[in-house]
Amino acid sequence: MNRRMILYLICIILRIEAVCMIPGLLISVYQNEAASVLGLGVGILLCALCSLSSFFFRVETKTIGAREGFLCVSLSWVAVSLFGALPFFVSGAIPNFVDCIFETVSGFTTTGASILTNVEAMPMGLLYWRSFTHWLGGMGVLVFLLAVVPMGRGKNSLLHVMRAESPGPQVDKLVPRLQNSAKILYAIYIALTLIQIVFLLAGGMPLFDSFCTAFGTAGTGGFGVRNDSMAGYSPYLQTVCTVFMALFGINFSIFYLLLLRQFSRVFRNEELRLYLLVMLSAIALITINTLPNFDGNVGEAFHHVAFTVSSIMTTTGFATVDFNLWPVFSKMLLVLLMIFGACAGSTGGGIKAARVALLFKAARRNIRRMLRPRSVSQVHMDGQLVDEDTIQGTYSYLTVYALIAAFSMLLIAVDEFSLETNVTAVMACLNNIGPGMDVVGPIGNYASFSNFSKLILSFDMLVGRLEIFPMLMLFVPAAWRRN
Amino acid sequence: MNRRMILYLICIILRIEAVCMIPGLLISVYQNEAASVLGLGVGILLCALCSLSSFFFRVETKTIGAREGFLCVSLSWVAVSLFGALPFFVSGAIPNFVDCIFETVSGFTTTGASILTNVEAMPMGLLYWRSFTHWLGGMGVLVFLLAVVPMGRGKNSLLHVMRAESPGPQVDKLVPRLQNSAKILYAIYIALTLIQIVFLLAGGMPLFDSFCTAFGTAGTGGFGVRNDSMAGYSPYLQTVCTVFMALFGINFSIFYLLLLRQFSRVFRNEELRLYLLVMLSAIALITINTLPNFDGNVGEAFHHVAFTVSSIMTTTGFATVDFNLWPVFSKMLLVLLMIFGACAGSTGGGIKAARVALLFKAARRNIRRMLRPRSVSQVHMDGQLVDEDTIQGTYSYLTVYALIAAFSMLLIAVDEFSLETNVTAVMACLNNIGPGMDVVGPIGNYASFSNFSKLILSFDMLVGRLEIFPMLMLFVPAAWRRN
Repeated sequence: MNRRMILYLICIILRIEAVCMIPGLLISVYQNEAASVLGLGVGILLCALCSLSSFFFRVETKTIGAREGFLCVSLSWVAVSLFGALPFFVSGAIPNFVDCIFETVSGFTTTGASILTNVEAMPMGLLYWRSFTHWLGGMGVLVFLLAVVPMGRGKNSLLHVMRAESPGPQVDKLVPRLQNSAKILYAIYIALTLIQIVFLLAGGMPLFDSFCTAFGTAGTGGFGVRNDSMAGYSPYLQTVCTVFMALFGINFSIFYLLLLRQFSRVFRNEELRLYLLVMLSAIALITINTLPNFDGNVGEAFHHVAFTVSSIMTTTGFATVDFNLWPVFSKMLLVLLMIFGACAGSTGGGIKAARVALLFKAARRNIRRMLRPRSVSQVHMDGQLVDEDTIQGTYSYLTVYALIAAFSMLLIAVDEFSLETNVTAVMACLNNIGPGMDVVGPIGNYASFSNFSKLILSFDMLVGRLEIFPMLMLFVPAAWRRN
Repeated sequence: MNRRMILYLICIILRIEAVCMIPGLLISVYQNEAASVLGLGVGILLCALCSLSSFFFRVETKTIGAREGFLCVSLSWVAVSLFGALPFFVSGAIPNFVDCIFETVSGFTTTGASILTNVEAMPMGLLYWRSFTHWLGGMGVLVFLLAVVPMGRGKNSLLHVMRAESPGPQVDKLVPRLQNSAKILYAIYIALTLIQIVFLLAGGMPLFDSFCTAFGTAGTGGFGVRNDSMAGYSPYLQTVCTVFMALFGINFSIFYLLLLRQFSRVFRNEELRLYLLVMLSAIALITINTLPNFDGNVGEAFHHVAFTVSSIMTTTGFATVDFNLWPVFSKMLLVLLMIFGACAGSTGGGIKAARVALLFKAARRNIRRMLRPRSVSQVHMDGQLVDEDTIQGTYSYLTVYALIAAFSMLLIAVDEFSLETNVTAVMACLNNIGPGMDVVGPIGNYASFSNFSKLILSFDMLVGRLEIFPMLMLFVPAAWRRN
């Protein structure tokens, strides 16, 4: 157990966090928001001070194993969430510290669930920081560290960290060198974000809104800067978001393949095909089902349904309409899409299309075996053999996922909201979506939950973003033991 | 593909069904219920006539493989359900034939979901037949056939049939000879049913009610003969049912071990321990949570909660109170218990304690492997090694289970009931429980669903009772192919 290396990495991450708070501070200074200046100032100072502790110890070996990888990721995320909550608390913008933690965890995990009832009353510096947590959390704070900090004499010294933080059943390195992979990922991420900002500005969205909206879209987060989420913006701006949400739900290696002009591999990608098939089918079905809600106006129905499906499936959580008022068939389908989620290797949450495809294929294989017990059949994905460990890992993932969902639903039921609120709140947090149904629907929020439930839901958001196992390791004594 | 043997077995089963309808006919004759006499008479006649077709072909080989086993079981169940629905339809007691199918499938699968709004208006002969389908379906119609019809020169010629019809991840034969195993199972089943009838009669329950109630309890079905289910009976009678429901949710091999006085093996049985632990914990938690609903009367709360938990966990579905009015925590817990279910090898439904234990152990094993990639660790159950095929089979089971649940919820959502009704109706049918929440709560019923939804839910009940794969095989072309 390389404890010093873990501590060292957390220190560097806090340093990065301090730097990331600076733009918010500058905005607050420019806007004369005294409380926000104090909050962000104290946040930056404490992050910087704690990160300096790295000078008081020496890291002898920089390699990190599987166990350390998991712990490192979970501890880093808990640390950035706690420090990231400080500006909200110190500024007094969110008086309850549990609320501050909920909001920050919701930001970093790109959930977008909020306890704020009036977003527009928040200082702009804090709103910027709140949206920026989405952007940071989307691609991963440790992947960011990998991309920017020169590390590792050992070639794959941080492979386990990247593996623990990246979503999906299998982790592909884009290129042989890990750090280069991280750099490519962040380059694509930054480029796409900038393109979206340009499109938003072209549609007349204010500069501040454009940045915050792009951060929320890129991270598939969902924090907005308006009380009505995206409902007040023009149809053009909403359409830009529809398209970019869908894009950020795609595996980033697809964009890399496009850059390499390997179009045939893109076409043959099974996850992408499943993702698009499900998205388009859902849009078609819900458009037909909700036609009466839009007075039979097909164009308008399609516009809002496409936005909603893109938002829910990619687990972003922006809203242009209150889908809580839609027919039960559409609501049921949206709840199932919440669980389905986006693609592996994207910034989106949920179970992920790749996992669903894998489960389905493994089940089909096992049924075939049941019919012909002596036949040998294997599971293939994109033409490549999937090893049994990956299948077993996916199954374990879902077992624990279901278990955590069940216990969470039970625990937050003490707040006595409706079953619908209860179940969808857990689903919306565990899958990093944001809005659920009923009380936590698109025009509702999480403010009325008890502190206890908010902490449970915060845990669920971290579990969802880090894909369970890193968070689970925190509670496994064997993971902490020295070698 | 031994098609003739499958057809031959179905013919024998229809003969058995005809015989089983006779007591109902006699009751109807005794009670002067003309319509019911006609209905049951026509039912018996048609069953007998169709079963005679077995004399028109010769069965050359009597052995049955895995594929035939699955198909045989699913086709038999569809056949008994269709023929079993005839008395309700012909008598005019249930005018809509889809309703008749729903009610009969609900009976045989021991679900207990009903479309009847006034049970007491039904002729007694039909009520008897309705309850008796529970008893027949509980232990399995083909296992019954195995127990009573002398078969098979080939030693294990029908092992695959028993395997396909018996619930649980692994099938134990109690004794080496299959037919003897089936006989022992049915002997225990009959004995327990008779003991319960004696206990009910001792409490002053009328003879007719006692038989029907015992059939509903033994099969963990839930059809009652009163409009208020069990609410009108004395606390003593309710307690008898609480105890017997819990007993019928236990793996029958446990009773066999008790008869053999192998008490230590009973004590060490992991599934039994998990089942009792979950049941007692749930009773304790819900009693505390519902105290205000019983005006703080602990004794009364415990009495009704124990009945409800026993009824829901064993997937029986009897009710003494309207648990739909309980606090959300209790309702949430009940919904989770619906999915958890009873023990494998019992008459109860749900995922089953053994499967939950197996999933949990497999996940723990895989997490351990994640921490120490080179370690070899295996899954044990009751001190015995569980092979990987069983684990893979359990995982496939749950994958397909989740998939069918999701699609069913989506399909019946076209009826536009609340999300709560929608989700719990599917859960209550797929897990063979009966009552769900809201519209399908303990004082509600399934009458208001459309024919389309009733057929979907009937399919779900069969899928739940036969543990998915036999029903799935009906839709796999490869299963039908000749060798």
